[in-house]
Formats: sequence, C-alpha cells, structure tokens
Amino acid sequence: MASGKPIEVGIVGGTGYTGVELLRILALHPGVHIRAVTSRADAGRPVADLYPNLRGYVDAVFSEPAAEDLGACDVVFFATPNGIAMKSAPVLLEQGVVVIDLSADFRLKDADEWARWYGEPHACPELLDEAVYGLPEIRRDSIRSARLIANPGCYPTAVQLGLMPLLENRLVVTDRLIADVKSGVSGAGRKAEMPLLMSETGESFKAYAVAGHRHWPEIVQGLVQMAGEPVGLTFVPHLLPMIRGIHATLYAAVIDEPGDVQQLYEQRYRDEPFVDVLPPGSHPDTRNVRGSNRCQIAVFEPQGSGQIVVLSVIDNLVKGAAGQAVQNMNLRFGFEETTGLQAIGLYP
Amino acid sequence: MASGKPIEVGIVGGTGYTGVELLRILALHPGVHIRAVTSRADAGRPVADLYPNLRGYVDAVFSEPAAEDLGACDVVFFATPNGIAMKSAPVLLEQGVVVIDLSADFRLKDADEWARWYGEPHACPELLDEAVYGLPEIRRDSIRSARLIANPGCYPTAVQLGLMPLLENRLVVTDRLIADVKSGVSGAGRKAEMPLLMSETGESFKAYAVAGHRHWPEIVQGLVQMAGEPVGLTFVPHLLPMIRGIHATLYAAVIDEPGDVQQLYEQRYRDEPFVDVLPPGSHPDTRNVRGSNRCQIAVFEPQGSGQIVVLSVIDNLVKGAAGQAVQNMNLRFGFEETTGLQAIGLYP
Amino acid sequence: MASGKPIEVGIVGGTGYTGVELLRILALHPGVHIRAVTSRADAGRPVADLYPNLRGYVDAVFSEPAAEDLGACDVVFFATPNGIAMKSAPVLLEQGVVVIDLSADFRLKDADEWARWYGEPHACPELLDEAVYGLPEIRRDSIRSARLIANPGCYPTAVQLGLMPLLENRLVVTDRLIADVKSGVSGAGRKAEMPLLMSETGESFKAYAVAGHRHWPEIVQGLVQMAGEPVGLTFVPHLLPMIRGIHATLYAAVIDEPGDVQQLYEQRYRDEPFVDVLPPGSHPDTRNVRGSNRCQIAVFEPQGSGQIVVLSVIDNLVKGAAGQAVQNMNLRFGFEETTGLQAIGLYP
Amino acid sequence: MASGKPIEVGIVGGTGYTGVELLRILALHPGVHIRAVTSRADAGRPVADLYPNLRGYVDAVFSEPAAEDLGACDVVFFATPNGIAMKSAPVLLEQGVVVIDLSADFRLKDADEWARWYGEPHACPELLDEAVYGLPEIRRDSIRSARLIANPGCYPTAVQLGLMPLLENRLVVTDRLIADVKSGVSGAGRKAEMPLLMSETGESFKAYAVAGHRHWPEIVQGLVQMAGEPVGLTFVPHLLPMIRGIHATLYAAVIDEPGDVQQLYEQRYRDEPFVDVLPPGSHPDTRNVRGSNRCQIAVFEPQGSGQIVVLSVIDNLVKGAAGQAVQNMNLRFGFEETTGLQAIGLYP
Repeated sequence: MASGKPIEVGIVGGTGYTGVELLRILALHPGVHIRAVTSRADAGRPVADLYPNLRGYVDAVFSEPAAEDLGACDVVFFATPNGIAMKSAPVLLEQGVVVIDLSADFRLKDADEWARWYGEPHACPELLDEAVYGLPEIRRDSIRSARLIANPGCYPTAVQLGLMPLLENRLVVTDRLIADVKSGVSGAGRKAEMPLLMSETGESFKAYAVAGHRHWPEIVQGLVQMAGEPVGLTFVPHLLPMIRGIHATLYAAVIDEPGDVQQLYEQRYRDEPFVDVLPPGSHPDTRNVRGSNRCQIAVFEPQGSGQIVVLSVIDNLVKGAAGQAVQNMNLRFGFEETTGLQAIGLYP
Repeated sequence: MASGKPIEVGIVGGTGYTGVELLRILALHPGVHIRAVTSRADAGRPVADLYPNLRGYVDAVFSEPAAEDLGACDVVFFATPNGIAMKSAPVLLEQGVVVIDLSADFRLKDADEWARWYGEPHACPELLDEAVYGLPEIRRDSIRSARLIANPGCYPTAVQLGLMPLLENRLVVTDRLIADVKSGVSGAGRKAEMPLLMSETGESFKAYAVAGHRHWPEIVQGLVQMAGEPVGLTFVPHLLPMIRGIHATLYAAVIDEPGDVQQLYEQRYRDEPFVDVLPPGSHPDTRNVRGSNRCQIAVFEPQGSGQIVVLSVIDNLVKGAAGQAVQNMNLRFGFEETTGLQAIGLYP
Repeated sequence: MASGKPIEVGIVGGTGYTGVELLRILALHPGVHIRAVTSRADAGRPVADLYPNLRGYVDAVFSEPAAEDLGACDVVFFATPNGIAMKSAPVLLEQGVVVIDLSADFRLKDADEWARWYGEPHACPELLDEAVYGLPEIRRDSIRSARLIANPGCYPTAVQLGLMPLLENRLVVTDRLIADVKSGVSGAGRKAEMPLLMSETGESFKAYAVAGHRHWPEIVQGLVQMAGEPVGLTFVPHLLPMIRGIHATLYAAVIDEPGDVQQLYEQRYRDEPFVDVLPPGSHPDTRNVRGSNRCQIAVFEPQGSGQIVVLSVIDNLVKGAAGQAVQNMNLRFGFEETTGLQAIGLYP
Repeated sequence: MASGKPIEVGIVGGTGYTGVELLRILALHPGVHIRAVTSRADAGRPVADLYPNLRGYVDAVFSEPAAEDLGACDVVFFATPNGIAMKSAPVLLEQGVVVIDLSADFRLKDADEWARWYGEPHACPELLDEAVYGLPEIRRDSIRSARLIANPGCYPTAVQLGLMPLLENRLVVTDRLIADVKSGVSGAGRKAEMPLLMSETGESFKAYAVAGHRHWPEIVQGLVQMAGEPVGLTFVPHLLPMIRGIHATLYAAVIDEPGDVQQLYEQRYRDEPFVDVLPPGSHPDTRNVRGSNRCQIAVFEPQGSGQIVVLSVIDNLVKGAAGQAVQNMNLRFGFEETTGLQAIGLYP
C-alpha cells in the first residue's frame, strides 16, 4: 500500500493543537489523502481560516462528526478530549477502519484504573486488551498489525524512552524512581482557561498536580512491563514558560556498578530512527527537537549519591502526539517509518 | 540541471543563524550536495556538534575557508558578516561559481552610499551594477541568469513586498512613507553581545537606530525602482522579545480614491508561490510563517486620516535570509522554485 | 487629610489585573485602609488565595458588591469591565463618595460616540461633562477637586503624553498623526479567552483591530483639546509576546523648522514626577518602567521625510491603569502625589 | 544606629545584575547613603545611564575601585565575580568596614574544596572560619555581630530553606537527597556570552552542569550542618526560558511515618518574615515572589514511592542575592529586618 493510491484519512477533533499538528504533518505526507476533518464547534469553517499557517496546503472544511462517513476512511485519528474516542471507536473498528487514538482512552489496560483517573466508567473495556500501545520503540511489530492504536501521552513518551534501557537491563532500583518533568504550555491543549493565559504562564514556572497526575498510571504501566517487576515512581510535572517541548529529568539509583551506561543506551537505540542518544556530557535542549519527531537522550553516570541521571527531550506535539501517531500510521500501512517525519528541529 | 547529478554547494560562514538555517533547508533539498561549510572560528568541528538539531542530517565538518576549493562548487553562499563576501566573490566568479551573498555587500548600487553606511570603501564596486538584487517577486528573470545574487535584507524583504503593489500602481504619496518594523532577536545574529542577552531582551520591547539604520538605503533604493520617482521613507526598527519573525506595519497616504486595494494585492501576488495575501480584515501573526518561506500580507484601506495600512510578516531567517537564498538558487539552477521550501509554518 | 486617619477605600471588581495591581500598590500606601474588595465570581474567597503574591499584605476577602456598604468609603475604585461603573457611580456620588473609574465609562464626553464604540446607550450621560479625565499631566487642578475621575486607558496615556508638547505648541501637522502602539498581553485583561493563551500569543506578534479600536476616540478627544483644532489620527495597536508594557511609536510631520524639540519636551515635563524625558539619542525599553508609575519618552527630530518620531513607554498596569488611579487619588485627597508610587522599574 | 544618621554604603562591582538590584533596593532604603559604586569597565559613567530604571533615584557615577576610599564606608557589598572579594576584604576588615560578599569567596569553610571548585587557591583562607554564612533563617544571631558575611548562592538559598525542617528533625534518609532546580537566566549574570543570548535560551529548556556545579559543595555543607550527619545529594540545575526566579523541586525519602509535615514547616517558619509556607495542596509560582525577598514553600507528603516532595521558590536576584544581602545588612546594623524589603511580588 506504500505505493499507489493514497490512503484515506479522517481526523476527529481537528481544532486542537494535536489536530492542527496532524494536519501540518499529513499535508506534506505523500501517501495520504485527508478526507475529513471534523469539529463540532467549527463545522463549516475552512481549516485554513482557523490556522492560517495551513493556507494553500489544506483545503478541507471542518465538518460535523455525524455528517461524515468516517467508515469509508482507511484510518481515523482521534485528536479529541478524553472520553470521546471510546464511544466512537467500536463502530469504526467494525467497519474495518484502523483507529489511532491520540487521547487517553485506550492507554490503560485496567478499566477500573481508567475509571479512577478519568472520572467515568470506560465505555468499551473489552477493547482495552486488544488496543496496542503505540510506542514503536518497544512495540513496533504489534503496531504493524493493530486495528486500534493507543498513542502514548507526551510525558509517558519522554519518560519511558528515557528509562527503557535501564529497566530492560535491570540496572536500577525500581521502587524509587523519580521523574521530574517539565512541559511547554501547548501540552495543556487549546482551551480557553485562565491558567493557560500568557499573563499567567509567561515569565513564571511552577509544578502542578504533585498529588497525582493522569499520566502517572500510564507511565507506571509501561515501566512495569519493561522491568518485569513492580515499580515505584514519583512523578512531578511542571509548566514551562514556553510553548513546545518536554524535558524529563530522571533519577534512578543503581543496584551495583552499572557498567558502561552510555554504550548501553547507544546500542539500545542504534536502529531507532527517532531516538538519538547524545555523546557523553551533552545536555539536550528542547529546541533541538522543536517541530521534529525526535527524542534526544543524554545519560550521566552516578555522582555522589548513586543516582543515574537521564535527560530526555521531545516536542510534545510531535513525538509526544501527532508525529508519533503518523509514525504509527506509517508502520501500520507499510510506509517507510520516517515518511512525512523528516523535519529537522527549528533552531534557533 | 534540475534532474540528474546534484549541484555542489559551498557555505562560507556557516556558524551564524543564517548559516545553520541554510543547512537546515539544504539538508533536505533533493538537488544539492553540501560540499563545504567553512568557519574560521569552528574549523575542525562537526557541524552537528554545534547544532544538535542537525545530527544525522548534516555530516559536514566546519573547515577553514582557505583550505577549501570553493572554486569547484556550482554555487557558494556567503552567510558572513558584511565586508567578507566582497573580498572573495571576484575570484569565485572568475572560476565560474555562482555567488549568492546573504550579507549586505552587493545590495546597494551606489558604492559611495555603501561606504557611508558600512564604514569602509567597497572592495569591488565594479560588480555592484552586475549584481542582481535577489527579490524574486520583482526580479525573477534576472535571477535565472545571474552570476552574482545579492540576497535582500530581512527588513527590506518585508517592507518591499508590503509596499510593492501600491508603488507600482502609483496610488500613494511617495515622499512620506512610514515603515514601523518589528523583528525577533535572531535578526541581530549570533553574536556574544550584551544587548542580545535574554535578560536584556526578554519581556521588554524597544525601538533602536531611530536616527538611521543600514537597511534604510536598501529599502529606499528598492522603493524608488518600484515607484519610478524619489521616495521619502521614515523607517523605525524595533526589537521583539521573541526569536523569529518580522512584522512590518506600513503607512502610506492615498493620492485619490484608491479603488479596490485588496483586489490589487491579490492580483499582483496571484502567481507568487511565497506571497500570500490574506482575506480582508485579517491580521497576520508572525507565527503563521515561522520556519516557512512565506510572506503573508494584509491590507487595510483608509481610516480617518487617509492612510492605507499594510501588514507584512515573514520569518526573518527564512524568507528574510536563508529561504529566499535557496529560492534564488532554485531559480538560478532550474529547480522548481519551491523545492526544499515547502515547510509549513510551525503553529503553535 | 494627608496625615491622621487613613481614608477608607473600596475596590469594585478586584479580581482582574488592574484590581490586583491596585491592591499591590494600596497595600503599602501609608494613608489608606482597604475596606472592601468586591468580586461577584470570587465572593467569599480570601484575596490572597487567588493572588499568592499578596499573602500577608492583604487580609481582605472578596465580597459580593451588593453586600458592601460602599457608601461608607471615602473613595471607590471601579476596576470592572466597561458598562458597570456607569450603573453604580451615581448612587455613590450622591452618598459623597469619590469615584475613580478605571474602565472606559466616563472617558468620552459625547454619549453618542460612547454608545457607538461600546455598543449600548450610556447609563448616565448627565455625568459625562462633570467627570474629570484623570491625566494629571494636563488636568492636575481639576483632579484635586473632582467627584468623579475617569482614569485614562493605557494606550491613550502613552500616546497623549508622547504627543502633548508637539500639539500644545502647534509644531506638527494635525490631520495625519500616526500612532503605532504595542502592548503586552496583560493589557487585554484576565479573561479566559483563546487568543490570550500563551500558545497563541507567545513567540509571535501581530496587529489587531486595525479597522477601529475603542481607544481611538479617547485619544482623538484628548489630542483635539491639546491642539485646539481637529485631529486626524491613524492608530494601530499590536500585541507583544510579553506581559507588561506599552511602547508607542508616534509619527508627526513638522510644519516648519521645529526648533529644539528635545528642550521643549524637557521643559514641558520638568516638574512632572512621573514623566521622564530621556537624553537625546536614547531608546526607552519598556522594562525601564516595569512595575513603576513612570512614562519615559524619547524624541527624534526629522529624518528624511520630515517626521518627528516620539517613543513613549509605560507599564500598562501602573501608569496605564492602577498607578495612575492612585496618583489621582493622591491628588484628590491631598497626599503627596508620589505616595505609594515610588517603586523603581524592575530590571532585568 | 537604626535611627539617626544613615550608614555609608559602598558597592564594588555595581554593573552586574546583583549590583543593579542592590541599587534598586538601597535607593529606597531609608537608613543608607550610597557613597560609592565601583566598576572598572564603566568608571566615569553615571549609574542611571547604564540602568535607566534608576534615573532620578540613584545619582552616583561608577568609579574606579582604587579611586574610592571604601575604608570610610560602614559596609561594603561585593557584587563581583568570584575571586575578587577575597583579595580586597582583608584590608577593609582591618579598617573596620563590614563586608557583605555576594560572590562565592567566603561561602565554603574548606579552603581546599574552594580551590577545587573555583580553580585557584583561596587568597585568605584564615578568614573562612570567621565568615558568617548569611542565611538569616539559620544563623540570625551570628549575622548580627559579623564582620564578614558570606551571602548565600541563589540555588543554595532555595534548596536549604526547602529542606531545613526535614533535616533538622531527622525525618528523611540523608544519603540520597535529590534537588532538581530550575533558574531564570539572570542567575547566570550579565555577561556577553553566547549561551545566554535570547536566541539560545528563549523558548527552550535544558539541564546543565549535571556532572558537577559549584553550588553543590555549598549546599552539601549547609545540609550537613542541619542534619548533623553526612549527606548525599544529587543536584541538577536547569535553565528556564525566563529572566527571574528559581524553583527547587526537592525529593527526600522518609525514614518512618513522618507525621504532620505541613505543620512542621509552618512552625519552623512561623516567625520568619521572608519564608512563607503555603497551604496544603498549593504549588508556588515563581512569579509570586518576583521582585520580592520572599521564599514560598509547599510540601507534599509521600506519594507511592515514599518521597516527600518540597517545592521552594525565590527570586534569584532578591532572596537569592541582593535582597538577602540587604536583609543581612539590616540585621547587622540594627535596622528592622524588613526595612527596604517590603516590595510585593509583581503579578502578573
């Protein structure tokens, strides 16, 4: 399918930041045709009206979700708030459509845990088991044949890629991992809410949700699978006075002398097109990956207190959302994995 | 030449922001091979060491300018401070190399005026007449056959594209034009200077060089050619607390009832791939064109005081520098004009 | 009254940025007692809960406007959206309370013009004539005895102070004045609106309301009074990617040889405690006045096209709102004019 | 001395950010007279020329250090780069001048450790023992009678105030403390260095000096004194894309059930004028303390992995430098501790 007729793509909830980012990427993807972009709030309005950066690249008009025959698409992306995809996905799956959900609806395997963190019962718990968690670096083969792909959260992507080599190789104490993570404000989405105003978030910095954040169970679930044992994680998210970018600073206590950790990371990610392990002593800037689908990682061996420190950066809207979703689509439909995702980080 | 063997490209002065931006664009251009990137200060250092966003895309190592046989290139870009290109270009031109100069050395036609504004005599005044001012929207045909292309300044690009339709059609009073122009700090280049520190330019805004700025004579020269008569211009540049983007707010008093100015702009730029006239009532954000080679323009007909107001935005490093240089290269070497320049503005 | 018992102060609408800024200033003012701070939305909540910077300085709890005996105050500030003060002021005035309105309700003298720009009939047109426009630099004496003070808008303050000496001395052509004005986002207030999000306004710049802005008639009204003749003004506001600060760049064509304009400005403002004319050649940064009640002005005599260029900066929340309101209160109640307003601009 | 004649103050190295911040604070301090402000680079230039925010408040002219009779001052502040104060302090102390050093010269007790981290032998190791570490919250009494005060670093202030109650009460495991700390760029000082440019630090975030930072031994020295036992600390500093503010996120594993940690913090700091413990569940923004001398702290009891998380914010130039220095001066000279330090955080 990688050559020949383009695949038909639908996007549900195209007005948020992950939606417009999907459009920015897919508009230049040689193998897709954007068939429908739905938005209840902006139905009838040309996409490029709302997003003038897309003028001339995207001709689509936002449509009512109901008005579209999404069942005729090959793949439908959900770039919707949590709780929407789980209501629509079952019908689409029955119609043979591949569903890639950028929300949290299919990320957790345990329906009760989902209900606890998201405040309502899950609408189709029977699909949770089938859903493939779309982190290609650990689940590439399953993604190639998935019907339903749960695209990972932005924080979970940065944290899991950062800790994966340590956990897979059982080098660190797993019951007291620490993830101190910082995100640009676009990670909070495009919502008219007071705390997201420039006057509230500019020139200031704070932690939030220290008592508990929805990405915590998603990260723990992933780390447990890597480690093959229970995991204790303290996860503290922070809001950066900037727009794009996540920086995870990860702390893990070594069990014994850990060996050459740098080399371990380089080997683990040698064949990964979107994970770039920096040379020893480097500190990745989030801007290195701005607008790109890359994760850059640096690893520092223990200072005084026996902690390995890992630095992991992504663009929350690309590798943390829309870019990873397209990477998953590429895998699923037999495109070259990097198709449409070659953009280089915008510096400065 | 557009198909077949890639052309050989040299970049002199690759460590500044226009240099790295050239690399970001050329690294994905299908028709070029980057043969040499010179930098006196960083010779011997891999380019991607200095610019980690280019890791895996650019293998080049910075080299001493003298050490390179730039004469074997098809085209050499000068991304150097003013005063360098004029000393090296003559030799390269004799060797049959096309020179695209991103500095100011060949922009002014009058050597005395050049000397007045740049503080030293011009090194090769005999080339000023031949040099083609590389603004494709007004000089496309000359560019196609030029040996020496003077790539326009960032402010001059935004201002000239904004005023061109008015002046070509003699709709406005030309002796009191006003250009109130605002630039992100990357326009000042990558120089370790106090006024460019984040602590100095962040969260603050100011005008500078109100008494006179080097882009003034360049703009005036261009406007005079469009208008076919003398031009009086007040030009006030300002520094924005952000990195990329120029916004020109232009004021011109109408002579008579000006007719449908919106339509005039749309027609003038209908076939231009990189000038986008927005619908009536729009206000372009600089972010619409961040990382893209586009100029977006909006035009407002007179309010009370008989002034047409034009808003014109570009990314100073792309359409205002490296992107326009590649556009010129494409024209000169028979590539599709948009090759390598398809990137969509990064929003948000 | 300047010594002895503090005056009783009420603030209506204390949850916006001008409200919290009033509190920040008044909390350290030695001559006032904050008796009531009302807010319909946050009634019952301690002020310092919402604004943790005020913890320990302001003990007040937001109250329902209706629940307060504002009539027992000496002065009531309205820091409300437009259209509120005009409904409540008459009753307070009857009770002998001095009203200082930071909204636009009493700024225009012409009730029809008010209705045209603000979209509803004025509720008490009979008070418009009595209301004193609270720009101390031109109306100090009237303020000292006013019952009702219309505190000027932020843009109008910067523009009027910038042009005043030119107009009072009839040095410039008045029918084609240009004010190109840039504001930090706090000028738009504390409202949960999409265009004010950090992701929308950060790292970007744009003009807005080019077709017409509510501050235009206010500015024109003021300029006409200074000039003593009709005035034509083109006014273009822009949104800066920063929080506090306004920078007005003003263009006025000279009539004849204007003489020593620098000296004219220095003399005009010699005795003004809050207007600071910079030495020739200076360019004021908005940060110079961040958090301070100052206006800094620089003036440049004509370049080529016969335009005087004036640069005028203020902090939109201080001299452009709350600080000027306290300056007016000081004048009205016989305090030293600078009481509580000594803060020095926060640099860097 | 608190009433009567003002004390005579000298500032050595007044052109950096801590220098101008000292001037901003001292200019409004009722008990001091600024006798001299020295700067080798800017000697002869009025202070307000370089810092237009100080126009009208500070009349001083920068002078050559040698040209001043600093020995006639009551107190001299060193706002110099490391390595200067240690050469000048001994003479001043002999002349009976109190020295408050804002650099690192007298912070470490161990001269060898100082030499290791600062790259040269210490010039007066015999004074290290006498020097009082100027953190009033733990050493108020010693400060009152000190001749030589070592003003703490910005990171060490935020970290020590954040961990003090836990260590003093032996509630946590001391051999694996983690301090993940983020600073605005003004913390790096006013130096014309490439990495501090707005184009380099804006809209991006990174860790730095993970392999070792000079504030590490200073923090460890302080924590050891609080804990009364050896301490293992992993300290990772980061650079925020903003100007002022430090946010420390601190992780400490509890030994047993820790009891009511919130109450412990509130009691520890109940009488501290500049430490403000927030209510349970709060997350301090750095902007709460922008321009103020406060430290705001929030404490969260263990999540899953047995870690107490403490959030501690200061303005790096105020409580982290100049404000704390004035607080120390107030203590030393018998002023009210809060004199000149009442400014409320600038929000928004």
